[in-house]
Amino acid sequence: MSMKKTEGGVTAAKGFLAASTAAGIKKNGSMDMAMIYSEVPCVAAGTFTTNVVKAAPVKWDRKIVYDYPTAQAIVCNSGIANACTGTEGYNYCEKTAQAAGECLNIEKYSVLVASTGVIGQQLPMGKLEAGVRAMATKLDNSLVAGTAAAEAIMTTDTRKKEIAVSVEIGGKEVVIGGMCKGSGMIHPNMATMLGFITTDLNISKDLLNKALKSVIPDTFNMISVDRDTSTNDTVLLLANGLAGNDEITEENEDYQIFKEALYYVNEYLAKCIAGDGEGATKLLEVNVKGAKDVKQAKVVAKSVCTSPLVKTAIYGNDANWGRLLCAMGYSGEEFDPYQVDLFIESEFGNLQLVENGMATDYSEEFATKILSSEYVKANINMKIADGKATAWGCDLTYDYVKINADYRS
Amino acid sequence: MSMKKTEGGVTAAKGFLAASTAAGIKKNGSMDMAMIYSEVPCVAAGTFTTNVVKAAPVKWDRKIVYDYPTAQAIVCNSGIANACTGTEGYNYCEKTAQAAGECLNIEKYSVLVASTGVIGQQLPMGKLEAGVRAMATKLDNSLVAGTAAAEAIMTTDTRKKEIAVSVEIGGKEVVIGGMCKGSGMIHPNMATMLGFITTDLNISKDLLNKALKSVIPDTFNMISVDRDTSTNDTVLLLANGLAGNDEITEENEDYQIFKEALYYVNEYLAKCIAGDGEGATKLLEVNVKGAKDVKQAKVVAKSVCTSPLVKTAIYGNDANWGRLLCAMGYSGEEFDPYQVDLFIESEFGNLQLVENGMATDYSEEFATKILSSEYVKANINMKIADGKATAWGCDLTYDYVKINADYRS
Repeated sequence: MSMKKTEGGVTAAKGFLAASTAAGIKKNGSMDMAMIYSEVPCVAAGTFTTNVVKAAPVKWDRKIVYDYPTAQAIVCNSGIANACTGTEGYNYCEKTAQAAGECLNIEKYSVLVASTGVIGQQLPMGKLEAGVRAMATKLDNSLVAGTAAAEAIMTTDTRKKEIAVSVEIGGKEVVIGGMCKGSGMIHPNMATMLGFITTDLNISKDLLNKALKSVIPDTFNMISVDRDTSTNDTVLLLANGLAGNDEITEENEDYQIFKEALYYVNEYLAKCIAGDGEGATKLLEVNVKGAKDVKQAKVVAKSVCTSPLVKTAIYGNDANWGRLLCAMGYSGEEFDPYQVDLFIESEFGNLQLVENGMATDYSEEFATKILSSEYVKANINMKIADGKATAWGCDLTYDYVKINADYRS
Repeated sequence: MSMKKTEGGVTAAKGFLAASTAAGIKKNGSMDMAMIYSEVPCVAAGTFTTNVVKAAPVKWDRKIVYDYPTAQAIVCNSGIANACTGTEGYNYCEKTAQAAGECLNIEKYSVLVASTGVIGQQLPMGKLEAGVRAMATKLDNSLVAGTAAAEAIMTTDTRKKEIAVSVEIGGKEVVIGGMCKGSGMIHPNMATMLGFITTDLNISKDLLNKALKSVIPDTFNMISVDRDTSTNDTVLLLANGLAGNDEITEENEDYQIFKEALYYVNEYLAKCIAGDGEGATKLLEVNVKGAKDVKQAKVVAKSVCTSPLVKTAIYGNDANWGRLLCAMGYSGEEFDPYQVDLFIESEFGNLQLVENGMATDYSEEFATKILSSEYVKANINMKIADGKATAWGCDLTYDYVKINADYRS
């Protein structure tokens, strides 16, 4: 596959426009609404939180994605999650879709909605509807408009998260662009907080859905900031067909190329979320190989990656490898600890800390140097069979506590 | 049952002596070894970590408790965990028991050992053996000696944890005393970090074991500081029979009285650990009732009690109830969120925040006042059936990060 990374995000693919506005939902007056719109109807796929407590927009979007053939717009607000808001909250989703539908001259059942922010408050519908009307007049297919949308959906994120790539499929240039936001309550289980991906690929709804479902488990579902699975997790993928390739209706070579490119986009965005976790100073990648099978590798990688004691050690640049082995040990998986090898790796070097479950004669100074990077890898070999997996997380810092001890105030 | 709380800890029961010393294992020179000794052989029971990575002392103690009829001493060091230390580490347990056995003139297989501290380092055996010899000459049945032992096993604990109670069983006064230590890597699963309980009750080994196994699941196994299940979790219970009651050999009324008193001691010590979790400023108690069954109640209570976002909100005195509902929702249990009631409670009052899954019209000011206590309760009613459970934890603070970002240095 010959893929190239290109500029922009959700407006990079043909026929996608975006807008954003400060609707007055966030108390500090900053940008808090975004809209994505396709000039033509799209097939849509989505994955959603597995939390039993599902926010109203998750319920609305599941209906649209599962029961309707196409969708054409996404309206997102940041500031209020619209979770634990009952029938009233669900009605607000419908009203938002209705308002957007009227402005854009499309069916309300073509409009997906998403929310992120404080749980349990009702949306200020007047402000929201005014925001929708304002954005509808500002829709723009420039890359800058996409970037502004990526900024408008941020809550405690410190930086926007977007990407675009292009690949050749069926003789045509196909673009996939995406944006997402974190950065607390991140332990996705079917999806992450909010991720929106657009493509001009021509593909059937079934295969679009299949492609998304196949890449989510190894990308967004392998990150964790704090083991808190959100009520609002949503990834939406829209394909409008404007690239002009022959419609993909079977798992042929075109489908494989698309899936690989989509995997790349999802992994990139997922790592952005992990590395910008609340209060984080670095991205932690845990690679497990030699496990009994992929499932065991995933469980072990996640257990290490989410341990508060591992995360604080990484923050302190402390090669406290005992905590990594401990976290492997309580993962629930059976294995022989005296068979485990462990390395740490960053741009500063690669160092074996553990051989067969016990400390090597490594240099603490060099280990600290390696861990001082903004992108630290822990590479674990369980030497049982060939199962492997990667999980991404971040360090646990004072700022995580600070942000969350007074998030609502 | 007529039980009275009394003074002291592990030396409160007849025939138990204790000693402690600074053996030079902790770098700062503070007390780091403790010994408990009974004048006569005891029946012993124990529960141990379920972590696959088990420290050497856990392996030694399991052998003694399961395979030998009696035990008579416990030797504990704080500073080095003797975990991930291979055959060499296990041999050190045997050498420690041997040294203690020689000094005390008992079989090495009568000596239980326990360690807590840094994982992966080997014990300095010379210092440890000198410590054993020093303590053997200082053994003392005073309450002060028990308290000093409780202090010597501390690592990042900020205060000693001990208790003693007396009950009348079979016409005799029976005393149960205990001590334990936390305070990080606390998410016990069969036992907590280290807990030692002594009693002069006369009881068969089978029933002693049964009593301990019956109270652990609702006490030590319901606390969590950081969801990190340690490699060293151990609770040991010694009964020497010196109270002079007729031996308990069946589950009669005497057994029930003992079990209730033991439950009280365990719950007290478990709450001490949770409230003194690393960096904690308060004890968080989560009471769930109205669950489908006890299992569901436990899972939900633990999920709420361990959520980093709940813990930081509690630290900030922020009644961010959406985080509690969210944590219930990702617990893995099925329930209708729009049926949940939630109250917060402390010595400052009791306040309903949520009725049927949505916010009541409560006073934020009063909620903040209630949460400003050092002992905060979240009371949840799921209104499904009559399953109930209680979990204990603590808030997540800057100091947790501080302590763990440079624990080894």
